[in-house]
Amino acid sequence: MISPLEKAGILVEALPYIKKFSGKTIVIKYGGHAMLNADLKKAVMTDLVLMKFVGINPVVVHGGGPEITGMLHRLGIESQFVSGLRVTDAPTMEVVEMVLGKLNKEIVALINGLGGRSVGLSGKDANLIMANKKYSNDCQDIGFVGEVTGVNPQLLQTVIQEGYIPVVSPVGISTEGETYNINADTVASAIATALKADKLIILTDVEGILEDRQDKGTLISTVKMEDIPRLIERGVIQGGMIPKVECCMQAIQTGVATTHILDGRVPHSILLEVFTDKGIGTMVVSD
Amino acid sequence: MISPLEKAGILVEALPYIKKFSGKTIVIKYGGHAMLNADLKKAVMTDLVLMKFVGINPVVVHGGGPEITGMLHRLGIESQFVSGLRVTDAPTMEVVEMVLGKLNKEIVALINGLGGRSVGLSGKDANLIMANKKYSNDCQDIGFVGEVTGVNPQLLQTVIQEGYIPVVSPVGISTEGETYNINADTVASAIATALKADKLIILTDVEGILEDRQDKGTLISTVKMEDIPRLIERGVIQGGMIPKVECCMQAIQTGVATTHILDGRVPHSILLEVFTDKGIGTMVVSD
Amino acid sequence: MISPLEKAGILVEALPYIKKFSGKTIVIKYGGHAMLNADLKKAVMTDLVLMKFVGINPVVVHGGGPEITGMLHRLGIESQFVSGLRVTDAPTMEVVEMVLGKLNKEIVALINGLGGRSVGLSGKDANLIMANKKYSNDCQDIGFVGEVTGVNPQLLQTVIQEGYIPVVSPVGISTEGETYNINADTVASAIATALKADKLIILTDVEGILEDRQDKGTLISTVKMEDIPRLIERGVIQGGMIPKVECCMQAIQTGVATTHILDGRVPHSILLEVFTDKGIGTMVVSD
Amino acid sequence: MISPLEKAGILVEALPYIKKFSGKTIVIKYGGHAMLNADLKKAVMTDLVLMKFVGINPVVVHGGGPEITGMLHRLGIESQFVSGLRVTDAPTMEVVEMVLGKLNKEIVALINGLGGRSVGLSGKDANLIMANKKYSNDCQDIGFVGEVTGVNPQLLQTVIQEGYIPVVSPVGISTEGETYNINADTVASAIATALKADKLIILTDVEGILEDRQDKGTLISTVKMEDIPRLIERGVIQGGMIPKVECCMQAIQTGVATTHILDGRVPHSILLEVFTDKGIGTMVVSD
Amino acid sequence: MISPLEKAGILVEALPYIKKFSGKTIVIKYGGHAMLNADLKKAVMTDLVLMKFVGINPVVVHGGGPEITGMLHRLGIESQFVSGLRVTDAPTMEVVEMVLGKLNKEIVALINGLGGRSVGLSGKDANLIMANKKYSNDCQDIGFVGEVTGVNPQLLQTVIQEGYIPVVSPVGISTEGETYNINADTVASAIATALKADKLIILTDVEGILEDRQDKGTLISTVKMEDIPRLIERGVIQGGMIPKVECCMQAIQTGVATTHILDGRVPHSILLEVFTDKGIGTMVVSD
Amino acid sequence: MISPLEKAGILVEALPYIKKFSGKTIVIKYGGHAMLNADLKKAVMTDLVLMKFVGINPVVVHGGGPEITGMLHRLGIESQFVSGLRVTDAPTMEVVEMVLGKLNKEIVALINGLGGRSVGLSGKDANLIMANKKYSNDCQDIGFVGEVTGVNPQLLQTVIQEGYIPVVSPVGISTEGETYNINADTVASAIATALKADKLIILTDVEGILEDRQDKGTLISTVKMEDIPRLIERGVIQGGMIPKVECCMQAIQTGVATTHILDGRVPHSILLEVFTDKGIGTMVVSD
Repeated sequence: MISPLEKAGILVEALPYIKKFSGKTIVIKYGGHAMLNADLKKAVMTDLVLMKFVGINPVVVHGGGPEITGMLHRLGIESQFVSGLRVTDAPTMEVVEMVLGKLNKEIVALINGLGGRSVGLSGKDANLIMANKKYSNDCQDIGFVGEVTGVNPQLLQTVIQEGYIPVVSPVGISTEGETYNINADTVASAIATALKADKLIILTDVEGILEDRQDKGTLISTVKMEDIPRLIERGVIQGGMIPKVECCMQAIQTGVATTHILDGRVPHSILLEVFTDKGIGTMVVSD
Repeated sequence: MISPLEKAGILVEALPYIKKFSGKTIVIKYGGHAMLNADLKKAVMTDLVLMKFVGINPVVVHGGGPEITGMLHRLGIESQFVSGLRVTDAPTMEVVEMVLGKLNKEIVALINGLGGRSVGLSGKDANLIMANKKYSNDCQDIGFVGEVTGVNPQLLQTVIQEGYIPVVSPVGISTEGETYNINADTVASAIATALKADKLIILTDVEGILEDRQDKGTLISTVKMEDIPRLIERGVIQGGMIPKVECCMQAIQTGVATTHILDGRVPHSILLEVFTDKGIGTMVVSD
Repeated sequence: MISPLEKAGILVEALPYIKKFSGKTIVIKYGGHAMLNADLKKAVMTDLVLMKFVGINPVVVHGGGPEITGMLHRLGIESQFVSGLRVTDAPTMEVVEMVLGKLNKEIVALINGLGGRSVGLSGKDANLIMANKKYSNDCQDIGFVGEVTGVNPQLLQTVIQEGYIPVVSPVGISTEGETYNINADTVASAIATALKADKLIILTDVEGILEDRQDKGTLISTVKMEDIPRLIERGVIQGGMIPKVECCMQAIQTGVATTHILDGRVPHSILLEVFTDKGIGTMVVSD
Repeated sequence: MISPLEKAGILVEALPYIKKFSGKTIVIKYGGHAMLNADLKKAVMTDLVLMKFVGINPVVVHGGGPEITGMLHRLGIESQFVSGLRVTDAPTMEVVEMVLGKLNKEIVALINGLGGRSVGLSGKDANLIMANKKYSNDCQDIGFVGEVTGVNPQLLQTVIQEGYIPVVSPVGISTEGETYNINADTVASAIATALKADKLIILTDVEGILEDRQDKGTLISTVKMEDIPRLIERGVIQGGMIPKVECCMQAIQTGVATTHILDGRVPHSILLEVFTDKGIGTMVVSD
Repeated sequence: MISPLEKAGILVEALPYIKKFSGKTIVIKYGGHAMLNADLKKAVMTDLVLMKFVGINPVVVHGGGPEITGMLHRLGIESQFVSGLRVTDAPTMEVVEMVLGKLNKEIVALINGLGGRSVGLSGKDANLIMANKKYSNDCQDIGFVGEVTGVNPQLLQTVIQEGYIPVVSPVGISTEGETYNINADTVASAIATALKADKLIILTDVEGILEDRQDKGTLISTVKMEDIPRLIERGVIQGGMIPKVECCMQAIQTGVATTHILDGRVPHSILLEVFTDKGIGTMVVSD
Repeated sequence: MISPLEKAGILVEALPYIKKFSGKTIVIKYGGHAMLNADLKKAVMTDLVLMKFVGINPVVVHGGGPEITGMLHRLGIESQFVSGLRVTDAPTMEVVEMVLGKLNKEIVALINGLGGRSVGLSGKDANLIMANKKYSNDCQDIGFVGEVTGVNPQLLQTVIQEGYIPVVSPVGISTEGETYNINADTVASAIATALKADKLIILTDVEGILEDRQDKGTLISTVKMEDIPRLIERGVIQGGMIPKVECCMQAIQTGVATTHILDGRVPHSILLEVFTDKGIGTMVVSD
């Protein structure tokens, strides 16, 4: 049972954050477990709607995950691999785009159903995400996999200003009109930069960066950019966390104030990170 | 060889139309042959981009056509039929939405590639198209086929005002969150009404309404609403033309000034209809 | 120890209230114990500053209390009494105005010191509070005691819009230029009406309206206007509570949505009443 | 007979120019044959009205021509000549101003009669054209002949923004309040500069600059500024064309993008020059 | 020698009038002696410039007077008379327009020379004064003499708002494009109505309305509309004063607050009438 | 008896000043005799109201004068003296603030009663006047006497723009929240600087600076800053006039255009100084 004074304490703690982030933009990479579990989905979307209620501007960039593989399988499209990477050939790209499009509108409908006002966009809309072909590390052709070459944020800015929560598919387009599939973390980071966002939040399926991966009590709340190389060297940051941390660094170096790696498995993790002193994940900051 | 005076004559003829329609909204149902042939596609999109250049606001509603059937076939989804109508069950609806989503972004990219600025939307975005379940004429359940119950035009108005050409998929959503497939002519008509559009243009694969269907020289340039029942009775308007004419009438009765049934097989038919005295198709007007 | 989920729950509960009251005006009658105790003073002012942070517009009307008596005593001004009421003669009125002026600026300085931006006003500024002479119930002359005849809210609206928290002394002026001392509850109610405030909050030194005055567990959370006469008849509302409830009724009848009688002795009682489902005092509503 | 496709082609060609010049200002020196023939007058004014319709801002500077001589003759005012130039003495200046004023309002009424909205101004209005006394090349006094010393474009900008087509008489005023008659080409050039116009068009009674003056097929469509001295040297540009070309050069050097010498005897020559790829006269450009 | 206190008294008297008329429009019919004498001209224009300085918007309508007759004489144009009225045939109308145009720009230049900003307009500009042919009282054709059928005040409003003092020639245009000469008092009255002016001032060559025309001490300062018929009957108002009073009545009946008949022979009569309690001429008011 | 022409002359003289100062801010230090005599009070307030009427923005800073001493006496508070200066201990400061507050609202009510709209502020409102402790020249502690460290003019600017005449008490607040009494001339000078005022006017009880203090005919109308040291040296400026002149110099050096030392005993001295060529006091200018 929470006492009135405790309640008041939480409010006194939260209200300055509401003021601080009012009118600010927060880009959220939405993916992983939080995209599969119905309760978590609803909790994430509730957080977005509530933030928008109080004047904060969330922007969602979502991944595609297992549904793409499922649809490729259903259509009997077999993937080739080059240097261990799946090649996104033209038929695959078509499936990627279709599945992302469907997921995009599902998220939009979920937000709208909770009382928010959402618009789903792909990187093709208003040339939102300009892209170029990307090659594997050993320079092999892996098909229609792209990297961001530019972001045209005007449309996003317009829909944000008009009160909508934009939801973006990580599809890009080249100046020649080719469609590319792009890593969603990277897209979120580039959009955060282009929107001069205050925060980039990447939802993951881990607690954040743990000093000792076996012990959740060793969560590192704040990491300075200058300390990251050493943490990678020491193996504290490793595997799939490395590109996520690199996305954070990229965003910070191009003007985003703070970036967060949050546990998407904790309900309302976004709200707790934004509105409480302590937060719940790992925040990556410039200094 | 066109003489300077003839050129000047065409300009003197066209400029007052540019003034007349400047700032006005024109909703175009895009479908049929004009959606399959690459040259016609480009001519249609060029017309849209040029109209936008001179201050007219085109809005596109597109159909899905043969690609949906193709994808259903590839996925081995067999359609059931009730009272001769294809039943849109849940797996079919999913395919419809995915294919429409892909076509939508293709149109968007084509417009953007021609120097326009386009945004693709589905009826789910910002609850643009609210829908209810529709039954067959003999009250059979035909699945996720819907009819429009309302249009929320604010998002369209915003993107139009910001200089974009909106492209809309004919997908609706119910207040319970169900997705419905809706006839694109109907959606175009409802959107024209909601936007207080000046014109509704339906691209078809015929010349317009012909007095004698065997003789293209008998094209009826203008039809008054009051004459339509008699034309249907006489068989001049028949078959697939009837629902198209009904969409026109619906739009006119709810405030759209003029509606047009144009031959989508003629390049630049939209431009010719809007900017010349004579036009090329059939215009349906109130009186 | 409050769990993250409990914290999130309080935020999920509070955020819709922030949206609901954003841009709304709340008039607070500040007096009693909350004006004497340094910690309570600071808690009240913190609540005001935080509400302003999140877009709510608090307006303070304060009383004068024991300081006036103290200063009259120091100056050797002895009060006459008529029908048991203290007569506010000219020298007394001068003291009242001086003491209220000093208290007013103290409150202003306290709010400014907490990071807010406050402006202190008297009813003479911009003819904010127009007043007439008031007589005792048995029509005796009790000097410069006034009743509100009109409120000119433009200045308040200006300073509110510019981001200030106005603090108002309950001094009025007549069209003949006479200064009057007015009951602060009445002034708060009249200002709430003139500002089309959403809420009127009266801080008192009791828990609210108790069904059984001996048992704090019998607090009545919500009272409908129609039930008030019966509650007075039954003695549940009695003594000094009656004029306070009458001020609430007056405000409701002239357009204020809800009115609250709160225990000023509970720290942050305003925040708890405004931002939680349950609240802590008695809310008087129209039906 | 022009085919639909040819018509469409002309529109597809013209619309980008409409976009390009939308909101831009075009200053037209109106004089010569186009000012005497009723059909040409109407064609020129139609062009101006149509350009204004589609968002382009034409500004007219007109000459006076034979009417001034006629009126001097009627009034029995005989001109003196100095170094072969007519001396504009005070009585002559009075006649010049009166005749220009009458022509000015005739043009205004003609534009208004065609559905445009026009305002006639002299250089005295709002001190639009400031002028100083000009002397003949051999420094003889030739009376009230002036040269432009400054342009105050605010009034022109105001009437343009309000949707009017301004028509300007080439009369200037000195800081001492003296009235001066000024060459209309020079005034048009100075106004084009002051308005940061996009184009200066000088209507003449020749085809443009011809490589061989006997052969209209040798029209030079585009002349670069750097080539002009050589063309003068070669005698391709000679006589009355030289000061016109100098006005163009002056305008280009002070920020006007392009200047045109058009044949005012061709109906709608302005429209053809502005809205077609090929144009019909000689365009003088910076490089 | 005026004492400081007397000076202060005049200022204390004048300042409330400045407030009262700030932003208001005053239409002045300028004619008679005040248009011939150089010192009076300058005093009138100074008054206009000073009024504009302090936020009042004067509009001038001027007559033509003796200059027209002079020019007709110089050109040897002899006037015909019908029912005792001069017939304005086409050559006469041309002279009227030219002379009015010249006078118009002279006034404009005079105002500009005194530090004001003035624009001269004819009734043809922006179709400012629409007119129809007028016949003599006994229905004889008197040529191009017109009566006002409508005023399009938008252009006047624009130039007023931009800080200019408009000066208007009493020339009107019919919907068929015919030019008409109109009585300047009538034009001033019609413009005052169209501009919703606060005052109409008619400068004359008499003191105002005198009870006894032989005795200047009998000036009637204020006349109510209802008393005018009786004053005409009694011969107090007679001759040329009758149409002037009728113009005043017309203006008052269509919304102009007050109208004034002032002695144009008194320097600064406008300033004295507008800024002092007593005024100097006759004011005609509604009641 | 003043003739119409003399009246007109005064108006012609005054109107350009009205234009010149329209929209400008004039800070008036109000004190001395003009604050004690009822007629002078009313004349000063009339001047302020009239200036506001015609678009000038007066701001009043008032002193406290003899009333503070009276109240200290009544309360039996005896002042200590250090180095000949009265020490403002805490009880004294409380009295100062109360008396200034009362005088402030009296001035406000007087302006409002004359048809103006006034707001009274203390330096605590919106942290208007930030202050630090000041020591005597020989570094003795003289209590809560302060010097201005900063002015936050936003609130003043807001109320000025909304049409109010602000009246300011010379009370400042430190960043630690301590209240200080500050010399009113200094406060007026600092506010004039912060508001980028056009004029600072200090009302005194002398004629201005006299070349020979025995002879009022030797008033120096204009003093240049560079001449002041010599005038002090020669004893022309001496005693209490020195700090006033220093306040003027301070204001001029920080951007105030002109400063005036006026005789507050002359009725309407402000109006005469601002609106006549000759003025009545001493103007201190930069060069």
